[in-house]
Amino acid sequence: MAQPRTLNVAMIGYGFMGRAHSNAFHQATRFFDLPFRLRLKTICGRNQENLDRMAHQWGWEETATSWEDVVNRKDIDIVDICTPNYLHEPIAVAAAKAGKMVLCEKPLANSVAEAERMTEAARNVPTLVWFNYRRVPAVTLARQLVEQGKVGEIHHYRALYLQSWGRDPADPVAWRFNPKEAGSGVLGDLLSHSLDLATWLNGPIRELCAHVRTFAEGRQVDDAVTVMAQFSNGSIGTFEATRFATGNLNRNCFEINGSKGSIEFNLEKMNHLTVFDMGDDVPVRGGHHILATGPGHPYVGDFWPPGHIIGYEHTFIATLVDFLRAVAAGEQFHPNFEDALETQRILDAVQESNRRRDWVRTKR
Amino acid sequence: MAQPRTLNVAMIGYGFMGRAHSNAFHQATRFFDLPFRLRLKTICGRNQENLDRMAHQWGWEETATSWEDVVNRKDIDIVDICTPNYLHEPIAVAAAKAGKMVLCEKPLANSVAEAERMTEAARNVPTLVWFNYRRVPAVTLARQLVEQGKVGEIHHYRALYLQSWGRDPADPVAWRFNPKEAGSGVLGDLLSHSLDLATWLNGPIRELCAHVRTFAEGRQVDDAVTVMAQFSNGSIGTFEATRFATGNLNRNCFEINGSKGSIEFNLEKMNHLTVFDMGDDVPVRGGHHILATGPGHPYVGDFWPPGHIIGYEHTFIATLVDFLRAVAAGEQFHPNFEDALETQRILDAVQESNRRRDWVRTKR
Amino acid sequence: MAQPRTLNVAMIGYGFMGRAHSNAFHQATRFFDLPFRLRLKTICGRNQENLDRMAHQWGWEETATSWEDVVNRKDIDIVDICTPNYLHEPIAVAAAKAGKMVLCEKPLANSVAEAERMTEAARNVPTLVWFNYRRVPAVTLARQLVEQGKVGEIHHYRALYLQSWGRDPADPVAWRFNPKEAGSGVLGDLLSHSLDLATWLNGPIRELCAHVRTFAEGRQVDDAVTVMAQFSNGSIGTFEATRFATGNLNRNCFEINGSKGSIEFNLEKMNHLTVFDMGDDVPVRGGHHILATGPGHPYVGDFWPPGHIIGYEHTFIATLVDFLRAVAAGEQFHPNFEDALETQRILDAVQESNRRRDWVRTKR
Amino acid sequence: MAQPRTLNVAMIGYGFMGRAHSNAFHQATRFFDLPFRLRLKTICGRNQENLDRMAHQWGWEETATSWEDVVNRKDIDIVDICTPNYLHEPIAVAAAKAGKMVLCEKPLANSVAEAERMTEAARNVPTLVWFNYRRVPAVTLARQLVEQGKVGEIHHYRALYLQSWGRDPADPVAWRFNPKEAGSGVLGDLLSHSLDLATWLNGPIRELCAHVRTFAEGRQVDDAVTVMAQFSNGSIGTFEATRFATGNLNRNCFEINGSKGSIEFNLEKMNHLTVFDMGDDVPVRGGHHILATGPGHPYVGDFWPPGHIIGYEHTFIATLVDFLRAVAAGEQFHPNFEDALETQRILDAVQESNRRRDWVRTKR
Repeated sequence: MAQPRTLNVAMIGYGFMGRAHSNAFHQATRFFDLPFRLRLKTICGRNQENLDRMAHQWGWEETATSWEDVVNRKDIDIVDICTPNYLHEPIAVAAAKAGKMVLCEKPLANSVAEAERMTEAARNVPTLVWFNYRRVPAVTLARQLVEQGKVGEIHHYRALYLQSWGRDPADPVAWRFNPKEAGSGVLGDLLSHSLDLATWLNGPIRELCAHVRTFAEGRQVDDAVTVMAQFSNGSIGTFEATRFATGNLNRNCFEINGSKGSIEFNLEKMNHLTVFDMGDDVPVRGGHHILATGPGHPYVGDFWPPGHIIGYEHTFIATLVDFLRAVAAGEQFHPNFEDALETQRILDAVQESNRRRDWVRTKR
Repeated sequence: MAQPRTLNVAMIGYGFMGRAHSNAFHQATRFFDLPFRLRLKTICGRNQENLDRMAHQWGWEETATSWEDVVNRKDIDIVDICTPNYLHEPIAVAAAKAGKMVLCEKPLANSVAEAERMTEAARNVPTLVWFNYRRVPAVTLARQLVEQGKVGEIHHYRALYLQSWGRDPADPVAWRFNPKEAGSGVLGDLLSHSLDLATWLNGPIRELCAHVRTFAEGRQVDDAVTVMAQFSNGSIGTFEATRFATGNLNRNCFEINGSKGSIEFNLEKMNHLTVFDMGDDVPVRGGHHILATGPGHPYVGDFWPPGHIIGYEHTFIATLVDFLRAVAAGEQFHPNFEDALETQRILDAVQESNRRRDWVRTKR
Repeated sequence: MAQPRTLNVAMIGYGFMGRAHSNAFHQATRFFDLPFRLRLKTICGRNQENLDRMAHQWGWEETATSWEDVVNRKDIDIVDICTPNYLHEPIAVAAAKAGKMVLCEKPLANSVAEAERMTEAARNVPTLVWFNYRRVPAVTLARQLVEQGKVGEIHHYRALYLQSWGRDPADPVAWRFNPKEAGSGVLGDLLSHSLDLATWLNGPIRELCAHVRTFAEGRQVDDAVTVMAQFSNGSIGTFEATRFATGNLNRNCFEINGSKGSIEFNLEKMNHLTVFDMGDDVPVRGGHHILATGPGHPYVGDFWPPGHIIGYEHTFIATLVDFLRAVAAGEQFHPNFEDALETQRILDAVQESNRRRDWVRTKR
Repeated sequence: MAQPRTLNVAMIGYGFMGRAHSNAFHQATRFFDLPFRLRLKTICGRNQENLDRMAHQWGWEETATSWEDVVNRKDIDIVDICTPNYLHEPIAVAAAKAGKMVLCEKPLANSVAEAERMTEAARNVPTLVWFNYRRVPAVTLARQLVEQGKVGEIHHYRALYLQSWGRDPADPVAWRFNPKEAGSGVLGDLLSHSLDLATWLNGPIRELCAHVRTFAEGRQVDDAVTVMAQFSNGSIGTFEATRFATGNLNRNCFEINGSKGSIEFNLEKMNHLTVFDMGDDVPVRGGHHILATGPGHPYVGDFWPPGHIIGYEHTFIATLVDFLRAVAAGEQFHPNFEDALETQRILDAVQESNRRRDWVRTKR
């Protein structure tokens, strides 16, 4: 067997997501047979002490403080961006122009204009946006069931993304409350995840009406949003994202109701999927509570035997695995910049709808 | 102990609700010590054969086919209306004018105008509207916790009422699909329940934006509705009601998130309430799964010992018990016609919002 | 249609079970079309004041204080026994000798000898023992699935009956702690229910080994019991019953694992049944969470539409309905005295096994 | 900060557990600040091709085929044993005699005699037995609550370990069905885990009575076991372990009932713990459903923020972390060989009890 080619990775940023990505770069080749080897070449940030600690802890070979230099290095194949949102665009554009594969945290950008420039610049390089929840095995299973027609014609899609840390002013992730750096509050942070899943599972959103709220006094980004949506396939949807849902730590959940069946998912029990099948005999009809750890479920066969659950970080691993395989096969990976641009446009429609207090058609 | 006075009851209509009400008239005095005895005097409807069978089965002393006669009989104290919706108004107005106590199925009417005439006519008689879910013990417990400040300042209220029988054209309850008789589809049938609970638990709705849909071809009433709402107390809400949520038989559920705690309820597990309390020690914080069958829970002490669950019909019994006690005490019972008129106004705002595709202020 | 014959009922005893039975006598003919009408003729007990209140509240025509007189009255057709356990035998034997149909609370008796005399005396009259949980619709559904072979060859049966009121010395049901009156603690009160269900669902128990414990100082009846069992069909089982399982109000639950599927039931969610089916497609295999309120489920069609749950008391109604139908058809009802005698023999084996600290074969 | 000393690891065996251990050796120093660095020096087994693949995939520097050589190498600090059970003893004894730290998969051995020799030989070296489930954060939380007296005096302990792959003759892990290699079936594989947790959470087992069964024709190891136990603290317990519980993939669960509270855990939802607290106000008493991902929970602070669940493999990481910290601090780690010897003695008592069909005192 030929030795797989090694790709050198540079990661810009080193916060919570920096850890999740570093982990994925190490673990992908451990659990999966991949067409590439990965080398954690350089980690880039502004604070040398933090960089050193992170490099040491997570096995990055070098540190760097100028992303401009890094993205132009000849020996770098992949640039992975996990900075605060406002830096996504300049870094991604530069990296793409330098011909690198570009991986970027979600949301893609702080505006449609930024996202368009990024997509345009990256037209000829492989891109990935870390909407990692598509690769929760239970969620991928949901997508497979929808594609196989198991839920039939879809009438309803409802999604919640509920967290509860918004009240605390001492929250360390200060940039997330800075409108210049984060662009928005829950819109980019939470709602974007729900929208990415919704359009992947149920297709485009044609029109929507949204209500955005900030509860915390003096805060300059949104704390909560509710959305009513009309999908192109005729189904209707609702979305809610908030950091003020006391008692909910990370309840990213969705439900799909169709003519033949229904599906329910909740990230807090991410190894489970509930599937209702109208095809079951009448007396035993009831949501199947599936422990989606195999057999017959995506990704998990490469992790552990059935019944041994996986955690949050494995979604990053599976995302990276699919990306590398797509690159090797010369195929498009999804969600890429183009897909994330669509989500950005929906986020834009959400803000416009809230501003105008009216229904808004999403642009395509 | 003085013998309690006997009240003679006349019931107009005898469908599904006729059975639920008949049961309540019998059972209320069995389980509870009440200030009145009830006599199931006469049952009124159009089909003599059905009437006879119903009277026989459920212990009504007489049958009648003219509600106009019945509501004017001297020996009748209580008129209970469980006809199709369009008959609520004429019967209630006549009964109220004749000085009867008037009990009426929900929704109160098919329009605000009807509801206003009913409320006006009944200004001086005791009234009850069968929004029975307020008296689910777990729901009453939720109300008590809100009143005691256990959830603190409320930020979010979300409610679903999901059923799944809408697709079936052979459904026997044909009048529910006739816009003249039912007035609406899920709006009056399901959403009205959610709105009654929401305003009881979380106060008035100031403004809303709604999306109404009919999925079944040729159907003249609505099949589904989604609503975004702004409550007067500053919290925001979402509502969804549908007969197309495959896999959900009767999922009337709500969640409340406040600064101090959260509450979750689901009618399909109506003996349970989930309560999250920020006051718990950090490591053991988590939704309390309460089996609301006592001790310390409303109503259930008069039914069975703790751990012995009650069913759907008990909510009608508890509603009637509270009504009779309020009458004996000379106090207002809730929800009465006035309360239900408010709900009718919100339903009206829902329809107007959907028509105008805009936010609408609810009238008061 | 011919008028159904009326059966006159005499009930001996009027505690918690007296209310449950009275309710069933009233409600059975309301919800179900039955071959008999029931007349609540006389209620018999020792305390006249309590009797009067109970008769008034629950609609008994007369009261009586001598059960010897009552069971010999010509106008009585059914004698229903809900006294403390030690009185079951003399009353049942006398009633049977007088040719009455005999209904008796569980456990049938305080000893096998008593139970044998009762069964012998009642050989020629219809009998019923109120092991009411067989008629939880979800439990009857479980039985149907087992009978249809849906779980295949059974390997495991495990049952718990967990309550938590045993610690409280102020408990009002004092006779339950009196060994002369109650015969045992959890053995007769809780374990008997589990054993009745187990033998109904999984067939006879051939051999067992038991461990009985009293936790409360000075108490003369058992507080807890664990049992290992070998069923005749080759499966193995475990049982546990206790009044010291803090946090569990009435968790009467069982699980069955077979070669083709599994079943789980919990009385605290008595309208639900979980069914695992090896026949499902591999990726969607998972316990079906069935809301056993119809369609396709036993009994519930005569109560309320699908999705409207029933409560504890409905199990007594359904039990009575099946009894009356069996009487009309001239068929054996189950569980009758003979069935309950078998359970009594297993209870006896439990005590013997605990005494001898050894495995014991159950006698048949 | 001084550079932490590097420990060289040799791993003997490379199956399912080999992957889990390799992962832990890599990940421990990534997620946690540790007093040692680990070097994955050599992996030892019998099949060179498999060894090469494993070494390549999981980053072992060298391969070896003679464990006798490996355990005596000067440059090896830690010997980790994940071979079939029958090899635990010779390897562990040799490694301990060579002065290595010895890590060993569970069960410690195939007999008490073997386990005693191992414990004796390893008296002066740090040892670890991979009863990894103690370090599920939710389980460690359970232990903390017990230690803090939150459950009060314990009356009941019940444990299940249910799997369902026993029927399949084509199962690849053939050695697990070979009595010479595995020593037993579910006893060593599953029950040992339950016993380790039980004695850790609830103290020693004084006496037990067990029932062991083989369902599969011709199989020479046990398929299922049930146990009744008497703990030294006065509580009683039940255990069941089986590979024939259709529908259960990996349900390792336990419940503890005490005078002040209760605890429930299920490995299939390993990030959750249910805690019932008698100290809660009566109306809101109910099991707290805790998502044990922080704040306030062990280990998880070093993994991901609250609400981001961890998986099966993290229990190995946490186990290793505690071991390395104990070594650095010169403290005893638990569970070590001595602890696992106690579990071996209970397994022995289980077999003796089954053979003699009698209660057996556990030796200490």
